[in-house]
Amino acid sequence: MTTVPVQRSENGSHQEQRGAVAALHQELVRYGLVTWTAGNVSERVPGADLFVIKGSGVSYDGLSWEGITVCDLDGEVVDGVRAPSSDTAAHAYVYRHLPEVNGVVHMHSPYATAWSARGEAIPCVLTAMADEFGGPIPVGPFALIGDDSIGQGIVATLAGQRSPAVLMRNHGVFTIGDSARSAVKAAVMCEDVARTVHLSRQLGAPLPIAQADIDSLYERYQNVYGQR
Amino acid sequence: MTTVPVQRSENGSHQEQRGAVAALHQELVRYGLVTWTAGNVSERVPGADLFVIKGSGVSYDGLSWEGITVCDLDGEVVDGVRAPSSDTAAHAYVYRHLPEVNGVVHMHSPYATAWSARGEAIPCVLTAMADEFGGPIPVGPFALIGDDSIGQGIVATLAGQRSPAVLMRNHGVFTIGDSARSAVKAAVMCEDVARTVHLSRQLGAPLPIAQADIDSLYERYQNVYGQR
Amino acid sequence: MTTVPVQRSENGSHQEQRGAVAALHQELVRYGLVTWTAGNVSERVPGADLFVIKGSGVSYDGLSWEGITVCDLDGEVVDGVRAPSSDTAAHAYVYRHLPEVNGVVHMHSPYATAWSARGEAIPCVLTAMADEFGGPIPVGPFALIGDDSIGQGIVATLAGQRSPAVLMRNHGVFTIGDSARSAVKAAVMCEDVARTVHLSRQLGAPLPIAQADIDSLYERYQNVYGQR
Amino acid sequence: MTTVPVQRSENGSHQEQRGAVAALHQELVRYGLVTWTAGNVSERVPGADLFVIKGSGVSYDGLSWEGITVCDLDGEVVDGVRAPSSDTAAHAYVYRHLPEVNGVVHMHSPYATAWSARGEAIPCVLTAMADEFGGPIPVGPFALIGDDSIGQGIVATLAGQRSPAVLMRNHGVFTIGDSARSAVKAAVMCEDVARTVHLSRQLGAPLPIAQADIDSLYERYQNVYGQR
Repeated sequence: MTTVPVQRSENGSHQEQRGAVAALHQELVRYGLVTWTAGNVSERVPGADLFVIKGSGVSYDGLSWEGITVCDLDGEVVDGVRAPSSDTAAHAYVYRHLPEVNGVVHMHSPYATAWSARGEAIPCVLTAMADEFGGPIPVGPFALIGDDSIGQGIVATLAGQRSPAVLMRNHGVFTIGDSARSAVKAAVMCEDVARTVHLSRQLGAPLPIAQADIDSLYERYQNVYGQR
Repeated sequence: MTTVPVQRSENGSHQEQRGAVAALHQELVRYGLVTWTAGNVSERVPGADLFVIKGSGVSYDGLSWEGITVCDLDGEVVDGVRAPSSDTAAHAYVYRHLPEVNGVVHMHSPYATAWSARGEAIPCVLTAMADEFGGPIPVGPFALIGDDSIGQGIVATLAGQRSPAVLMRNHGVFTIGDSARSAVKAAVMCEDVARTVHLSRQLGAPLPIAQADIDSLYERYQNVYGQR
Repeated sequence: MTTVPVQRSENGSHQEQRGAVAALHQELVRYGLVTWTAGNVSERVPGADLFVIKGSGVSYDGLSWEGITVCDLDGEVVDGVRAPSSDTAAHAYVYRHLPEVNGVVHMHSPYATAWSARGEAIPCVLTAMADEFGGPIPVGPFALIGDDSIGQGIVATLAGQRSPAVLMRNHGVFTIGDSARSAVKAAVMCEDVARTVHLSRQLGAPLPIAQADIDSLYERYQNVYGQR
Repeated sequence: MTTVPVQRSENGSHQEQRGAVAALHQELVRYGLVTWTAGNVSERVPGADLFVIKGSGVSYDGLSWEGITVCDLDGEVVDGVRAPSSDTAAHAYVYRHLPEVNGVVHMHSPYATAWSARGEAIPCVLTAMADEFGGPIPVGPFALIGDDSIGQGIVATLAGQRSPAVLMRNHGVFTIGDSARSAVKAAVMCEDVARTVHLSRQLGAPLPIAQADIDSLYERYQNVYGQR
């Protein structure tokens, strides 16, 4: 999919959304979650069978709407001057199979990827983790890039879980959300809890949180936190 | 408390203090102690049964006096355009029960929270820790958000301790001070010593400091350090 | 080699390339890979038996083309106002013996150097590592500075490996590339995977990736990733 | 010593040197070696029995010559508007007993202080450490602030060592140099090698470097590195 010829519409469609998605990538940079050009954010185009995603190997420096490409839900380029991310097929699969998802993030952030390389889920031992993830962050299968394997692994692993994040084995993190911003927040929080639980485990065993307390924290956070 | 309707006075009361408290949040950002919108600083309004506190889920970027809400000591909103922090009840409890406290900070900083997830106090094995904390940093109980449980845990745990910081189990840190600035300093130093003691413990056992030396260091630092 | 008298051509030759190489050093600073003045980037001058390299002990602050010195392939200064890096002999040896290499980076980044101090290769347990390095990052011999020992160690260790990075024992990292930019990318990615694999190993054993999968990932990344 | 009344000369003496020393503190900030107001740099005044040192508890933000106080070699204030660092007695002791030393730095940087809390010297297992320190970084005694104990510990521990850095037990680092800049460089490099050796030790045993090789590296670095 990344090798199809890239076309350019006269003025570039969906410039505002592409600009907003470009800007969201800076949150990944700010928190040290991405290295060089790896990592990407995508967002579904409202009311269309399209999504916008970072170009492949494009730098985070000065990333603007022109670094973001418009694709259809098969991952084919519809508009843009950059070949889309080599992870486009995985994003497209998620959008095709999870209609409530409007944003997807992928990254190889160090602590979460360290858990993924052991194939180990992150246990829910922090109230902030209960708030955002509602339980452990699960591990998906090892899957090669190039077909629907990664997308299938993401969707199958997240089914029936509260967590908006999945650790793909030996690979890194995918997060989902009802917007690109929500998926970016989940990515930022995923690395944060991956780090804190890692640190805690280094010197002993973190204490568990009772399932009823996890449920209570998750319920409250999803319904009370923030501005309504 | 976070769901009461928010009112706005004509020009916004206590703007100067709210602006100063907003600015203090940047110290938490600078030292990497907070992620996304989590964490908050509050300060008692001098001569009134009020305190000011960060709004719930409000971004640290461009945080100004308008992101800070005025509450009474029951945590009810008195003035402001943002619903106050979901931790408002805990801050209010501290102000009601500890009249000498004028500032409170809450955060989920990684190293201190890692200790809290094991339910383990940080031992006083650094002279800088004897200076600021006068002994170990204690651990409070597991407590759910939503009533006075967290506030009670903070106050009960700090009673009879020199430490201005408490690690709430599986949760994070609360610090107190005679001003918001003092509580922020305690928060910054808490993570600093949590990290150094963590690192030291990773490769062996830190050497203890004799209690008489801890007493001597604490006494001197509280009375001699800084500009008089 | 670093003690030969330094000459200055009238206006400074190869200013554009020297300026570009100077600027590339900022990537090492941005990712925290270098401390004080240690570390250096060099690049072969196209169509000439020359390369350009950072001056010895020169600060990264405000580094411009004048901080970069032109040397011949024996490491002798041809043009410049700074004595070249004390690692110049190692870079020169690489350019003499590996004609396809046009860029070299040296650094003492913390995680990769930690592996080197144990004399331990970094195992290929991350898809991002398979992409960029195509296998483990190997360890070269202990070698003293001052003659061709380091250069020989680099060239001998990289022979027959896909990895553009080598960990020199008890010392640090050398990376190669078809340009200075490629070698800098390899350096940045080397520290990134050194850190993630280190973190993963701290809490258990990372799962291996099958050789056929490593081969497939490497092949695809080298041929499909990025803009073509 | 920190409680003597502070006097102010009409225009402030030694403004240029005090400004330069103030600026050097920013290197400690840049490398994350200091927290809040802890840490300090001092420098001997050439041709006088005086030195200049950071004020006690003074912020690093906007630190200028006015935040730096002039003291005599007993640590008594000669000129300045800030009470000097609470570590002034230790700096003064070093200047009185080591006439070749013109700069001193003190800090509680995390990795080096972690070694100090175990009372453990940092073994010389990196070529960069052989270059700068010429061997292990030694540990000095536990000593209370307030008299000459710390200064005596520094001077006695550094006697007969090549290392310009000493880890004071359960406390932090002191470094010396022929200028404040040299002492700052030693401080920056001390934390750098403390971190890398810590990381290396976390996953096994770093390989030793033969004493003859350490000697050779130290000799060369002291005489060849940099611009002559």
